[in-house]
Amino acid sequence: MLDYNVPGGKLNRGISVIDSYQLLKEGSQLTDDEFFLSSVLGWCIEWLQAYFLVVDDIMDNSHTRRGQPCWFRLPKVGLIAINDGVLLRNHIPRMLKLHFKEKPYYVDLLDLFNEVEFQTASGQMLDLITTHDGEQDLSKYKFPVYQRIVQYKTAYYSFYLPVACALVMSGEKLDNFVEVKNILVEMGTYFQVQDDYLDCFGAPEVIGKIGTDIEDFKCSWLIVQALERANENQMKLLSENYGKSDPACVTKVKAVYNDLNLQSVFAEYEAASYEQLISSIEAQPSKAVQEVLKSFLHKIYKRQK
Amino acid sequence: MLDYNVPGGKLNRGISVIDSYQLLKEGSQLTDDEFFLSSVLGWCIEWLQAYFLVVDDIMDNSHTRRGQPCWFRLPKVGLIAINDGVLLRNHIPRMLKLHFKEKPYYVDLLDLFNEVEFQTASGQMLDLITTHDGEQDLSKYKFPVYQRIVQYKTAYYSFYLPVACALVMSGEKLDNFVEVKNILVEMGTYFQVQDDYLDCFGAPEVIGKIGTDIEDFKCSWLIVQALERANENQMKLLSENYGKSDPACVTKVKAVYNDLNLQSVFAEYEAASYEQLISSIEAQPSKAVQEVLKSFLHKIYKRQK
Repeated sequence: MLDYNVPGGKLNRGISVIDSYQLLKEGSQLTDDEFFLSSVLGWCIEWLQAYFLVVDDIMDNSHTRRGQPCWFRLPKVGLIAINDGVLLRNHIPRMLKLHFKEKPYYVDLLDLFNEVEFQTASGQMLDLITTHDGEQDLSKYKFPVYQRIVQYKTAYYSFYLPVACALVMSGEKLDNFVEVKNILVEMGTYFQVQDDYLDCFGAPEVIGKIGTDIEDFKCSWLIVQALERANENQMKLLSENYGKSDPACVTKVKAVYNDLNLQSVFAEYEAASYEQLISSIEAQPSKAVQEVLKSFLHKIYKRQK
Repeated sequence: MLDYNVPGGKLNRGISVIDSYQLLKEGSQLTDDEFFLSSVLGWCIEWLQAYFLVVDDIMDNSHTRRGQPCWFRLPKVGLIAINDGVLLRNHIPRMLKLHFKEKPYYVDLLDLFNEVEFQTASGQMLDLITTHDGEQDLSKYKFPVYQRIVQYKTAYYSFYLPVACALVMSGEKLDNFVEVKNILVEMGTYFQVQDDYLDCFGAPEVIGKIGTDIEDFKCSWLIVQALERANENQMKLLSENYGKSDPACVTKVKAVYNDLNLQSVFAEYEAASYEQLISSIEAQPSKAVQEVLKSFLHKIYKRQK
């Protein structure tokens, strides 16, 4: 179960803990112990991610994940996968206890993982009640709703958590880094907007999958933007064709996206987000923290996959 | 979701925290604050229980719970219930943080709940792989297997956890109470044996439900005892009829139980367990701890429901 579900991702979140911790140490080489401990925290995030994926795939009725069938799809597994997800999750505090119990910041790590798991589960709840609420209803797909789902479901655990782990290991109190949290959540939103854009406009051979957000009636950034800008006729086309698996319907939705020039809308959003993030980052008092945030931003800015 | 899943149980686990804490204070009246805080811990266990029930009912494909349809059976809920279970669970550390953050034993409470949740999920895993492993196989149903499932799946969170919460609130270190833990786990096993016995031999109008362990191919204490004692012919009858919903099959299994005199086997087990528990309890150095354990034992000894 562990071999099937924990490895196989890009390890971005886990590696970011070590990278961020290194930057916070401002150039001085990590000791073996520091490298090991930041790696443990990185793996805790990867296990957290594995837990979310195992459990969310069941609720979303997904088929494949990281190029193999979802864990619950295996005939010998089925809904036992729920308990497997819980076991993955239960190993996080075990790893923390084993390696950090004597550290002065042990309780801060427990609080941090508890808070972020709660935020992510709240985001998943928002997503489930918005997207799958029986009858499909495009009128709910507005930007504040979108933003809130992304912030809770993705940004906290993918962007804030790795940096927060590195800060805690560096002896910092997270209460002093509220603005850092806001910046990382903003970055997470920007990352998800890219994801939604690439699902439709990315090259399948580059992003490694064929997007199906339109077919799946997803609350994607693109449909939110389209609904904001559509005239009466375009609105009718979107209502009639969004969320249908027929390729002809998908083509009609994409035609509306093109007519509304969503590629330019995205390019503007990307440029504006970048500028705003850079200016927030440069307002940070600590140069080391600025480096951590910029390094994160440059990993994702203008990505093609 | 909270109103549907948290109340409605007997509250035994929750109330035991307050009762135990009162006994540990050896007669002196609880202050309002102490009463409130021990109640918070009691509710944390009740929420933990709600989480286990919501999630286990999905995996066991159950129909009813506490006299109403299981939460995931509601048409508007379905597998979203998994995330609801996770949300119930995520509120435990939130309640602990809200009310205990400044206490010197805050981190001990976090460790305790984490450990007990892990043990329970491990017990659920043992149960799932023993009971539902594709083809049904009675040869796996032996007492050590049974005991291990019960210990992990039920005893830790139902018996050890309430007393451990009271000890932690009293300023004790749980490492000094390993024998108390063993006694409570033993009591939990005895409780589950009673449960299995009453499922078959209890009066439905008293226990409030009609037992279906035989039909459901459950790894019950009765089948474990029967398999230990059956001759070749009885073994054949058990293999052919255990786990079938046909009432004629159930009758044949019960006939074997009667021929093997399992009611007397149970009476002997009950008497022996009680004696052994009392002697372990009286070996405890603290009179207050003895009172806590005896009070727990007398709540369940020779119960009829």
